[in-house]
Amino acid sequence: MSVFELHPDRFFDPEPKVRNIARALYENVKNLPIISPHGHVDPQLLADNLPFPDPTELLLIPDHYIFRMLYSQGIPLEKLGVPTIDGSHVEKDHRKIWQIFSSNFHLFTGTPTGAWLEHEFAEVLEINKKPDADNAMRLYDEIQEKLKSPEFRPRALFEQFNIEVLSTTDGAADSLEHHKTILQSAWDGRVVPAFRPDAVVNILMPGWKLEIEKLEKASGMEITSFQSLILALKKRRAYFKKMGATSTDQGVFSPFTHKLSEKEADTIFQRALKGQANINDAHLFTAHMLMEMACMSIDDGLVMQIHPGSLRNHNNAIFKKFGLDKGCDIPVQTEYTNNLRTLLNSYGNNPGFNLIVFTLDEATYTRELAPLAGHYPAMKLGPAWWFHDSIEGMARYRQMVTETAGFYNTVGFNDDTRAFLSIPSRHDLSRRIDSNYLARQVARHIIDIEEAKVLGKVLAYSLAKEAYKL
Amino acid sequence: MSVFELHPDRFFDPEPKVRNIARALYENVKNLPIISPHGHVDPQLLADNLPFPDPTELLLIPDHYIFRMLYSQGIPLEKLGVPTIDGSHVEKDHRKIWQIFSSNFHLFTGTPTGAWLEHEFAEVLEINKKPDADNAMRLYDEIQEKLKSPEFRPRALFEQFNIEVLSTTDGAADSLEHHKTILQSAWDGRVVPAFRPDAVVNILMPGWKLEIEKLEKASGMEITSFQSLILALKKRRAYFKKMGATSTDQGVFSPFTHKLSEKEADTIFQRALKGQANINDAHLFTAHMLMEMACMSIDDGLVMQIHPGSLRNHNNAIFKKFGLDKGCDIPVQTEYTNNLRTLLNSYGNNPGFNLIVFTLDEATYTRELAPLAGHYPAMKLGPAWWFHDSIEGMARYRQMVTETAGFYNTVGFNDDTRAFLSIPSRHDLSRRIDSNYLARQVARHIIDIEEAKVLGKVLAYSLAKEAYKL
Amino acid sequence: MSVFELHPDRFFDPEPKVRNIARALYENVKNLPIISPHGHVDPQLLADNLPFPDPTELLLIPDHYIFRMLYSQGIPLEKLGVPTIDGSHVEKDHRKIWQIFSSNFHLFTGTPTGAWLEHEFAEVLEINKKPDADNAMRLYDEIQEKLKSPEFRPRALFEQFNIEVLSTTDGAADSLEHHKTILQSAWDGRVVPAFRPDAVVNILMPGWKLEIEKLEKASGMEITSFQSLILALKKRRAYFKKMGATSTDQGVFSPFTHKLSEKEADTIFQRALKGQANINDAHLFTAHMLMEMACMSIDDGLVMQIHPGSLRNHNNAIFKKFGLDKGCDIPVQTEYTNNLRTLLNSYGNNPGFNLIVFTLDEATYTRELAPLAGHYPAMKLGPAWWFHDSIEGMARYRQMVTETAGFYNTVGFNDDTRAFLSIPSRHDLSRRIDSNYLARQVARHIIDIEEAKVLGKVLAYSLAKEAYKL
Repeated sequence: MSVFELHPDRFFDPEPKVRNIARALYENVKNLPIISPHGHVDPQLLADNLPFPDPTELLLIPDHYIFRMLYSQGIPLEKLGVPTIDGSHVEKDHRKIWQIFSSNFHLFTGTPTGAWLEHEFAEVLEINKKPDADNAMRLYDEIQEKLKSPEFRPRALFEQFNIEVLSTTDGAADSLEHHKTILQSAWDGRVVPAFRPDAVVNILMPGWKLEIEKLEKASGMEITSFQSLILALKKRRAYFKKMGATSTDQGVFSPFTHKLSEKEADTIFQRALKGQANINDAHLFTAHMLMEMACMSIDDGLVMQIHPGSLRNHNNAIFKKFGLDKGCDIPVQTEYTNNLRTLLNSYGNNPGFNLIVFTLDEATYTRELAPLAGHYPAMKLGPAWWFHDSIEGMARYRQMVTETAGFYNTVGFNDDTRAFLSIPSRHDLSRRIDSNYLARQVARHIIDIEEAKVLGKVLAYSLAKEAYKL
Repeated sequence: MSVFELHPDRFFDPEPKVRNIARALYENVKNLPIISPHGHVDPQLLADNLPFPDPTELLLIPDHYIFRMLYSQGIPLEKLGVPTIDGSHVEKDHRKIWQIFSSNFHLFTGTPTGAWLEHEFAEVLEINKKPDADNAMRLYDEIQEKLKSPEFRPRALFEQFNIEVLSTTDGAADSLEHHKTILQSAWDGRVVPAFRPDAVVNILMPGWKLEIEKLEKASGMEITSFQSLILALKKRRAYFKKMGATSTDQGVFSPFTHKLSEKEADTIFQRALKGQANINDAHLFTAHMLMEMACMSIDDGLVMQIHPGSLRNHNNAIFKKFGLDKGCDIPVQTEYTNNLRTLLNSYGNNPGFNLIVFTLDEATYTRELAPLAGHYPAMKLGPAWWFHDSIEGMARYRQMVTETAGFYNTVGFNDDTRAFLSIPSRHDLSRRIDSNYLARQVARHIIDIEEAKVLGKVLAYSLAKEAYKL
Repeated sequence: MSVFELHPDRFFDPEPKVRNIARALYENVKNLPIISPHGHVDPQLLADNLPFPDPTELLLIPDHYIFRMLYSQGIPLEKLGVPTIDGSHVEKDHRKIWQIFSSNFHLFTGTPTGAWLEHEFAEVLEINKKPDADNAMRLYDEIQEKLKSPEFRPRALFEQFNIEVLSTTDGAADSLEHHKTILQSAWDGRVVPAFRPDAVVNILMPGWKLEIEKLEKASGMEITSFQSLILALKKRRAYFKKMGATSTDQGVFSPFTHKLSEKEADTIFQRALKGQANINDAHLFTAHMLMEMACMSIDDGLVMQIHPGSLRNHNNAIFKKFGLDKGCDIPVQTEYTNNLRTLLNSYGNNPGFNLIVFTLDEATYTRELAPLAGHYPAMKLGPAWWFHDSIEGMARYRQMVTETAGFYNTVGFNDDTRAFLSIPSRHDLSRRIDSNYLARQVARHIIDIEEAKVLGKVLAYSLAKEAYKL
């Protein structure tokens, strides 16, 4: 059985000068409150505040970072308890699933998932043993025991994690009932929604019409034209804003932006309502909706996020059996310079517009995104994200972005997680990597220690707070 | 005259903590047997086991890594003795060629070719002088002398190099006579073929029909239809497997995969037989043949390799005069996410399928290949390859691949060489770089030393052995 | 107020072994004369040799690196005194502009602009205070005072900077009057022009016909056909050469090369004269002009430079109001392997041809450019350029290029600057980064210290001198 300790200097360069500076810089930021402006935690968790049922349900089943790695090594998702769409049988014995996970924990060596899990074990669950085939059941019991105690309830953890504000991501038609519950409760944790209209924008998605119907219901109006769609979205944005939202979020395949006339937009919309829209329609419609969303952002002040570049549900067999978000979204090459030009030329010089752009294509950091963020006042660059939210990924981000965009055209850290327990570990990792980056700058006499101290807090706290108006 | 020693800590980080760990990890793997699952050594070398004729013939003429650099600095290939297709005159005096090489040895400073050559000089030839204009003839004589001794015969070197298994790469119509000679000899060195069907798949290649005729002869059957082509390939694969092959290898311009109906495939094949196929035919045919090869791999268990992304014979003048593989293959941008989708959706979830994918486009490591290998059970990612088979190239590979794909979705090291003498130097370099990578992970407390020791052996030995079923 | 010193070891790795070697290597090159083979200094500066008017005019208004960062953070260009095309009002009070710059100096932390400015302050202006809101006016006065003294005149600075030769960049129709003034003056500073035909090649650029008329005047001949255009260009090249030019420079959107027949070229040219050329015409015409320029280079021996990959004037609003070169040029993905093939197949093996290729797309370093430069004798790779002319950018360049292309297929450093005062700081930074790169190679026992010393001078001085025939 492998006992471990989280080393206090983990992730820092071993070179003593750098390490000493990194340690000092990290000390300065490690206890700052967590701003989590972009993530996927289920708000019901914090509304209901029920105990987590068991270790497998808490740590494994909802986390596609974990089961994608196990799947890649030949372990069927059924054996990992991932629920099927048609309800066909999957493993129900959570102990068995935990045993498989534990026996394969070595697969996560050197991955950020491994680093996050170790932090969760050591710091949150206070268990300093790495799971393995032998200790699996003992650890399961130990964790199970802890989950019963009041300090492991979601709200208690939220406070223990020192979260100042947590943003969820919510569909345009979402009732936000859990946010309402939280707002109306005596608990004063700040949990805000973010407006994600993808389901009603993506006219080719199976089930799109159903989503429009949901939006009709949520907005209390008929949606029979493009104009009424926009009106409904505006109403929903207003409601989201009232419920605390400060931002929107759009996942698109390509960041192509294009202005349609209202008539053109409506023609496509009508075709879509009849189920007759084609790929080109969808391409243009999404491009135009990015323009509309920017327009609305200027009106209502919500910060606009665009994250393109993922080919969703690459693996048809898995998608058909298990549905969305099962670790089969694969990045593609993404072009920003031409694609964003229409949007940036229309609104990029507008002092009332705030746009945050993400990428999964690191080749665009130095080539396109840092130059764009380093010029347009409206645009800022989102952090290393998803596959790049890692020790090396974050280091590459700073190395490739800073020299052209500076620090102040970036927006701090996003944990982007649906794994509630991983929030502190992700922020801690980010703070360590940024401290180390700054320490390397100081040790090479590129910046001085006073600048580094200021920047440490800026990167760990203020940029996110300001960029997202939180 | 420049005397040199191979420093025992070469290629390791200078930081003392990292270097100490790297040294320890390297000690642990440096004497492991060499698994060479993918390379281009001429099997006749080991079948005949004749002495190497002279230093120039041994080290320079067959090695396009060497003459491409000299050519780039204005030295004509004719002066380097590279044989012309039409037999027109090239330098025959191998001493003169050696003199040119020696006078220009500084061009290789900082390149992997330079590092390999120094290793070959110091460790294999036991000469600790760098070639230069002055010492050229003395070194030539010294090496010439050594090549006469029995311990410099190919099989003796094979044993001295501690090669457990060496895979060659062989055309679909190859008689494998040299493999047979080796198998039937008293010598027990393991030299296995790999099945490379490029010449019969690439219907636009000049000489393709001739290759089909060779395949007819080799398979003992007429090839008049697509169906008979497939049958002939199956027969040849069976023969290769009998002769020890465990893998196939396909070099394609693009990794585009696409399923044709048998009728469509045959229509193209018939056009090709008449010399009437066009570029689009070739594009579709190659895409379909990747599907067929995958199918056959599932049947016969041979591991499938795809290496795309090189524009072969970029320099027409050189190609016309000197032919293939003269250092004029230039990489192009390569797309995997969309291109491999058909193949991976058909066979990527199949537990009986083993696919190894290579790239020359490092931008795809984090963006496409690590995410794909980190999801599909059938797919693994080949090592840093060809232009990237170098100190910095291998370091970038680990840094960019590991966090998403982990270590176990990669396949260890391939030397990919036609330069027999460079095999130990290439494996040694790889083992040093991986030891250093792991040492940096340990020194930053990302993994612990026990994990690193296990991984060291996994990367240097077991992954290649297992992934290639050797 | 923040006092600072330039640390003697700045930009070097903190690891003591590396730092000691880097320091020794840097000592060896720091006082070498500056070869500046590619830049944008206004030759009138050195022809007139007048005092610089004031700090804002000297350091801020002409430098788009500076005002693009300020603009990205919401400061209008009007407030920074950037002149408008229509002469509409912008800030005229240079003290106010200096105050804004100083109050926002923290935006440059961690950027190369910041590093260059600090060097200019400390080494050229001998002021060891970083600008801030409080000290702005005092610094302004201090600098203003210095600018009056004779040692701050342009020619005195040229000598103090130890510039051996400075190349400007000049339009094909330029009279080179300032170069003539310098040549005819008693001053013996070497300032040579470089021939840049973009304005007469780019047939779609607004004002193109006017440029043709200027070229007619400059060449003393009518330009009514493609043939006469070529003749005029040849005459101008001859004149530039007579005035000291050794190179040409072409900025193109794409490096696509293609050979048109003379008739095809003339047909497009005639359409262009009538204002009827379309995008495809322009694409083909530029591609063909690259072929023609190569041809002329073989004839007259001028070194040919191509720098593609920038989408110029991305921000229409800024372009319309302020014109070219206002920090709104954004890089795009660039393809070289296919695009340069026609050119390289025609002239790349020609010993009389010298081609230097630049990129803004770092993904092409290892994939396309190092392999091309490492093969074709005519082609060399330009240095890390524009957005990549930075501490990390230069380090990436060496790490990604050297292993495939070696050192001798690169061309040393280009400062590429229009900011005269930044020349020594840019060369100093480059010499430091290369010293550090070589030191890391030595400390890892990849090259030895004697090789590093030779290479240090090669990279800092001789490569540029030789590649540009200076």
